[in-house]
Amino acid sequence: MPAYSTNMRFKFPIFAIILEIITIVLFAFFVEYDKGGHSHGSKEHGGHDRQSNDTEGDTNIRLYPMFQDVHVMIFIGFGFLMTFLKKYGFSSVGLNMLLAAFGLQWGLLMQGFWHGGGKIHVSVYRMINADFSTATVLISFGAVLGKTSPLQLLILTLLEITTFAVNEHIVADLLKASDAGASMTIHAFGAYFGLAVARMLYRPGLKNGHENDGSVYHSDMFAMIGTVFLWMFWPSFNSAIAEPGVPQLTAVVNTYLSLAACTLSAFAVSSLVEHRGKLDMVHIQNATLAGGVAVGTCADMAIGPFGAMLIGFLAGIISTLGFKFLSPILAANLGIQDTCGVHNLHGMPGILGGLAGIVAVQFGKKDGSAGMQAAALGSSLGFALVGGTITGLIMKLPIWGQPPDQNCFDDSIYWEVSAKEDLGHQSGRY
Amino acid sequence: MPAYSTNMRFKFPIFAIILEIITIVLFAFFVEYDKGGHSHGSKEHGGHDRQSNDTEGDTNIRLYPMFQDVHVMIFIGFGFLMTFLKKYGFSSVGLNMLLAAFGLQWGLLMQGFWHGGGKIHVSVYRMINADFSTATVLISFGAVLGKTSPLQLLILTLLEITTFAVNEHIVADLLKASDAGASMTIHAFGAYFGLAVARMLYRPGLKNGHENDGSVYHSDMFAMIGTVFLWMFWPSFNSAIAEPGVPQLTAVVNTYLSLAACTLSAFAVSSLVEHRGKLDMVHIQNATLAGGVAVGTCADMAIGPFGAMLIGFLAGIISTLGFKFLSPILAANLGIQDTCGVHNLHGMPGILGGLAGIVAVQFGKKDGSAGMQAAALGSSLGFALVGGTITGLIMKLPIWGQPPDQNCFDDSIYWEVSAKEDLGHQSGRY
Amino acid sequence: MPAYSTNMRFKFPIFAIILEIITIVLFAFFVEYDKGGHSHGSKEHGGHDRQSNDTEGDTNIRLYPMFQDVHVMIFIGFGFLMTFLKKYGFSSVGLNMLLAAFGLQWGLLMQGFWHGGGKIHVSVYRMINADFSTATVLISFGAVLGKTSPLQLLILTLLEITTFAVNEHIVADLLKASDAGASMTIHAFGAYFGLAVARMLYRPGLKNGHENDGSVYHSDMFAMIGTVFLWMFWPSFNSAIAEPGVPQLTAVVNTYLSLAACTLSAFAVSSLVEHRGKLDMVHIQNATLAGGVAVGTCADMAIGPFGAMLIGFLAGIISTLGFKFLSPILAANLGIQDTCGVHNLHGMPGILGGLAGIVAVQFGKKDGSAGMQAAALGSSLGFALVGGTITGLIMKLPIWGQPPDQNCFDDSIYWEVSAKEDLGHQSGRY
Repeated sequence: MPAYSTNMRFKFPIFAIILEIITIVLFAFFVEYDKGGHSHGSKEHGGHDRQSNDTEGDTNIRLYPMFQDVHVMIFIGFGFLMTFLKKYGFSSVGLNMLLAAFGLQWGLLMQGFWHGGGKIHVSVYRMINADFSTATVLISFGAVLGKTSPLQLLILTLLEITTFAVNEHIVADLLKASDAGASMTIHAFGAYFGLAVARMLYRPGLKNGHENDGSVYHSDMFAMIGTVFLWMFWPSFNSAIAEPGVPQLTAVVNTYLSLAACTLSAFAVSSLVEHRGKLDMVHIQNATLAGGVAVGTCADMAIGPFGAMLIGFLAGIISTLGFKFLSPILAANLGIQDTCGVHNLHGMPGILGGLAGIVAVQFGKKDGSAGMQAAALGSSLGFALVGGTITGLIMKLPIWGQPPDQNCFDDSIYWEVSAKEDLGHQSGRY
Repeated sequence: MPAYSTNMRFKFPIFAIILEIITIVLFAFFVEYDKGGHSHGSKEHGGHDRQSNDTEGDTNIRLYPMFQDVHVMIFIGFGFLMTFLKKYGFSSVGLNMLLAAFGLQWGLLMQGFWHGGGKIHVSVYRMINADFSTATVLISFGAVLGKTSPLQLLILTLLEITTFAVNEHIVADLLKASDAGASMTIHAFGAYFGLAVARMLYRPGLKNGHENDGSVYHSDMFAMIGTVFLWMFWPSFNSAIAEPGVPQLTAVVNTYLSLAACTLSAFAVSSLVEHRGKLDMVHIQNATLAGGVAVGTCADMAIGPFGAMLIGFLAGIISTLGFKFLSPILAANLGIQDTCGVHNLHGMPGILGGLAGIVAVQFGKKDGSAGMQAAALGSSLGFALVGGTITGLIMKLPIWGQPPDQNCFDDSIYWEVSAKEDLGHQSGRY
Repeated sequence: MPAYSTNMRFKFPIFAIILEIITIVLFAFFVEYDKGGHSHGSKEHGGHDRQSNDTEGDTNIRLYPMFQDVHVMIFIGFGFLMTFLKKYGFSSVGLNMLLAAFGLQWGLLMQGFWHGGGKIHVSVYRMINADFSTATVLISFGAVLGKTSPLQLLILTLLEITTFAVNEHIVADLLKASDAGASMTIHAFGAYFGLAVARMLYRPGLKNGHENDGSVYHSDMFAMIGTVFLWMFWPSFNSAIAEPGVPQLTAVVNTYLSLAACTLSAFAVSSLVEHRGKLDMVHIQNATLAGGVAVGTCADMAIGPFGAMLIGFLAGIISTLGFKFLSPILAANLGIQDTCGVHNLHGMPGILGGLAGIVAVQFGKKDGSAGMQAAALGSSLGFALVGGTITGLIMKLPIWGQPPDQNCFDDSIYWEVSAKEDLGHQSGRY
């Protein structure tokens, strides 16, 4: 790989500032507060629209605690989950914050444009959807973690959220498919979008690994902060935009139980496939969460508590086996270097969730059409692969400050880090 | 101690998978969603039943934010509090997650079996109680931390939650005693259950300490994450299942103030008993929480804000003195090696809470019988000691992969950890 | 500096215990539970009083999730944000807890004394205000971090919260100024109070820096836990005491968007001013939060989503530039050694927030008087500077165990820390 300049001094700040100014101008024209008492004129995510029931801005606040749970998943959950790399913690949690902060603004605009004419009204419900849209980017970020510049990642955010909003509109409004916990529209979409990008950015020079592409004891501990917050608040993620009442409670219970069952199977399979039955931290950090992904589409359906547990149980097995056996094959044979293994946490469990949704609708666990569910899964995968490929090609242009192979997985290329291994910055606060 | 095999390769995964499959089958037969509009037919924890007032599943969701606070205490609070050991962080937070994930499923079943006939209806209220039941196990886990295998701990979970459910039924339904914040049924129970197990698993070889049975600077910092989350959300723990309205608010206020007063006394006494008045991190991590434990039974009673503060103030003193002076005596003279000092955080403050409850009921701070309160305390201690002793004997069987003395307090016996001191795993994600 | 005794063995514990006992006695006389159904007889913070609408203690609980978010900001947010120093993590998160625990009790008393006669009724609303009052102390703590003894800090807490309560009474009750998110009464007040204290405690010996006044990689990671929790829950901080309904939702939306825009500008400017365009962790940890501070006063005003974003965008720029260029000047020329740079995070953005509030009221975004807003800003700054100067003089008395220069920024002077660099305590739990 040629020695592109990785100096971000003007490119990155100017791009970020212009992007933010454009965003503010768009908000000035198109966005106002939600005052309640109106319908958004469109049904979202679960084929229903809760806003129309809210005659006061106040009732809107009912969803606020769930919004905050989702917010924690986005900023702490995804951010710290990716801090497992020994020298990439600043980027993981810092760039996660940057991308999500821009992404939620862009997501508010993009989702608003597709949902009815006139002004976009910001409510807690819309804020949840805005946070959701950033999740797709953060999943894709995991696939290319350590191998991209902040500038490349802002471009990824811009393009992926735009694509997400189109697909989400098709799935929810045109196909009227169910996807309350977004197994298809967020998890599978984000994973395959990211994998397509990773394929485009394939680095032969990393074929034999990289000394910084691994964890140390403490970085694995930081990552567990992310894992546990994701695990705990996943019931909020899957139920936040479900219909109030029984469906919302169902989504909470299904996710709670699916994750619990998944944890048992992930631990068991991790021990089963490892040397001397030892547990592998990679599996525990990731595969324990697959139950939350896989139960997403069915979350608000009457699949029964044991049905949710079965889905979680299977997801934990599939995800752990994926980390152990499939990831090396994808890297060696398909040129897909998936840093965080998002294929195992979001990709396969997301597809499992989509398939479970087809079956559940077919068996009448929720009103709907199994065909439309299948179409929604196909649409999500299609937009992800095509959108990710195009985005990857754009990100590959040699003008975005992409790091050379030897500087991958290392904060010091984009952050002030003391040269001495163990030292940070002398703060210079005064 | 003979060199038992600690290879978990088949024992652990097979046991875990069979356990989970049995659990799923039991759920298929006995568990369904709560749809509201019915009574659970039984009064729980505080001698009241809120479910009967809920005619819609939706109103059920009212408790959801408090559930999430409790959830954070269980998975982040207990999990990270135990990461203080220098080489046992993976096990602390990882096995904490495993045990709680299985425990909440088992707790749902066990508590359901004792509360009325017919199906068990999962509601947010039941989920809070399920999480509560896991707290007993995590407290006991602290007493044996570093000295047991994952398999032994799953057995502990199974037996302790079963015992807990029996005692809880007796205390709440038969004795009709008050224990809103569960000083007796969770804290004292969990502590003495764990101490009885620790007594049974006594290791003479650790009499003179173990080089890994201590903290390093960073592990103490991780532990503070646990401490602070427990501290902050304890008002939710003590009020979550209190009666709505004034009693619930009372429980919030009492716990908030008890913890605040406890923090002052824990800091003060720590400085008073240490060399040159220095603070000891062990005390700060633990004794600052004793006020939450001790005010539990009285939490929803009209003991007055200053009454709550007095209880917390005393608890902080007792707990700190316990760490300093009593724990070494228990280890040296009674063969009770209590790794986390749960006797000081949960045991003595739990008994203090039970006694305070007797006094408070006697003085009419809540309707009830002081005698029944005393009986509840006795029942909790009795079930804990007998149950813990039997469980300890079962755990002592030389077939569960218990670690030899020299491998205690060390993740590397059950986890993939790089041999090099400071390195974790090379992730092998691709 | 003369070698004062830093032995805390009797001074600190006796002071802390007497302080707590006095507080409990005051609570016994003046504080009772809120039972609803009455007015506090006074309007708080935003010139409104929500309590009067609550006829049941139960409805009071409506604010509980927002209280918990604020609680997390106080104990995790502020506590971990200050753990960036390489050897001062125990003190940062530990003393933060101590000061906040005492401060919330004192704040309940002080705010109660100014709000109507008779007893003080503790409600969730009052608990939020109590937590708020501690924020001023924790901000000031940041200015003197590493250079004061626990005893000095308790005195700071006592005096600053007393001063805060007087100013808050003047601003809200007499001037009837708007300050929903407390840009003026908490952020600017806390910052300038702390800077005045820092000026009084000026240490010429630290003019050329101190080897421990800096971060290491892992301490910066711990600090990010604080940053991200503050960032996420700031919408709760700014909206918690806003009027229910549209104003509260407005405060949530404004803060959410202000922070998002601020993050972009903070990242951009950090890259712009640093060597080779690299990002500086100090900026990311702090300046990304300036948008929450600056939008505080206007939070519940109809400034429009884009208006909030503009405020945040500016705040991110000002704050980052302050860290880079102004802090060194303050230290070199004015003798203000501001360890955490609170002037850049809370001081200037707080003033920006106050000014924005004057403009917004002038343009009719909320009923009120621009003159009164200006008077509120002046009052806050005046009380801060005078109160901080007097407090600093008292703290300077050579009887409080202040650390000598060479022991600054080092936990080991007040905490048991193993002499060996990397080791903590041998727990002595048994």
